[in-house]
Amino acid sequence: MTIEFPVTTSYKTEFIDITQKIKSTVKQAVKEYAEYAGESGDTANPAPDGICTVFCPHTTAAVTINENADSDVLHDLEIGLDKAFPDRNEFRHSEGNSSAHLKSSCVGASETVPINQGRLVLGTWQGIYFCEFDGPRNRKCIVQIHLY
Amino acid sequence: MTIEFPVTTSYKTEFIDITQKIKSTVKQAVKEYAEYAGESGDTANPAPDGICTVFCPHTTAAVTINENADSDVLHDLEIGLDKAFPDRNEFRHSEGNSSAHLKSSCVGASETVPINQGRLVLGTWQGIYFCEFDGPRNRKCIVQIHLY
Amino acid sequence: MTIEFPVTTSYKTEFIDITQKIKSTVKQAVKEYAEYAGESGDTANPAPDGICTVFCPHTTAAVTINENADSDVLHDLEIGLDKAFPDRNEFRHSEGNSSAHLKSSCVGASETVPINQGRLVLGTWQGIYFCEFDGPRNRKCIVQIHLY
Repeated sequence: MTIEFPVTTSYKTEFIDITQKIKSTVKQAVKEYAEYAGESGDTANPAPDGICTVFCPHTTAAVTINENADSDVLHDLEIGLDKAFPDRNEFRHSEGNSSAHLKSSCVGASETVPINQGRLVLGTWQGIYFCEFDGPRNRKCIVQIHLY
Repeated sequence: MTIEFPVTTSYKTEFIDITQKIKSTVKQAVKEYAEYAGESGDTANPAPDGICTVFCPHTTAAVTINENADSDVLHDLEIGLDKAFPDRNEFRHSEGNSSAHLKSSCVGASETVPINQGRLVLGTWQGIYFCEFDGPRNRKCIVQIHLY
Repeated sequence: MTIEFPVTTSYKTEFIDITQKIKSTVKQAVKEYAEYAGESGDTANPAPDGICTVFCPHTTAAVTINENADSDVLHDLEIGLDKAFPDRNEFRHSEGNSSAHLKSSCVGASETVPINQGRLVLGTWQGIYFCEFDGPRNRKCIVQIHLY
């Protein structure tokens, strides 16, 4: 199952919590998997294993997994990434957003999360975030789920 | 196959080589895959392809792949990450470990490694490491293997 | 399907666009998938979903996804990574390429890209790059494609 959903960002840098959206997509995929198995005459496995790939199709944004409890962590991620990958005089790209491209490559376009017995295997304090580094913009996020 | 294993860390920052654990898990998965195929009456493929996702369920730790030969590389990774993502006065998170959260997002929570003909496709000098950035702690690591 | 192809680099740091190679590999895998389904007597799905993992088997190189239009972005990525992860006096690794090992772990050895209806799901401005951080060298890149 491949789905795409919109992400609207409001700031230059922003971490949007997409954990619930990913979890509900996994739930829907598990339901369809069981229904399809039932139609095929197979015994439906109500709790399959699998993997979930969360993919960002933009070059000045990214996907990461980090703390879901204290939003100060997100503030500090923003500061720390700005300091590690600041704008520089040597940069040539005329759009002036090379710092965002750097953050995109270091944080990364994809995260792959295991699915165990029908459930996304996230740690207690983990949330999945769409990372905007050059907003505000209308973005999208892609989720690919394979159950077996 | 989804398995979870404990990782006990002894230092603030530490790179634990989990390559052998991942390789033996792949070997076990390949064995079970062949047995299951045999029971189903299918011709068992003794050397299936697949993918192996190594996942860290913590927000101040990560998973990476790097040199397995000279431990000085791990020393230098520690220094280089400390310099790129130091503690900063502007940080707000009251636990005081935002530097570890930053390293976690930049190194990343997951790595996906191909399996070719029943074997993990690692380069000659590559080892898989569980990265502790806020230890010592009792951690766990999750491995998801899909063969086909 | 697991394939390996050579990548020859010419500079110390270089971003080699491997997008067309990955796309043609996906196309070939989709063709073989349909042929195999036909031979098995199944109805061939000409446009399967799946995932494509691009993997770098080296510890001073990496794989990333970034802008495919303006090559100035690649210039700026090189500068920005050099500044964030420079050579340091404290480094011990005798080969003197610890900066390249650091970039390898931060950019990452693998990217996983969804395949939707037989096509690689890349954003409009996204290209897939093999990143050389310690060249020139003869390298290789591994692509694992699973369709279903």
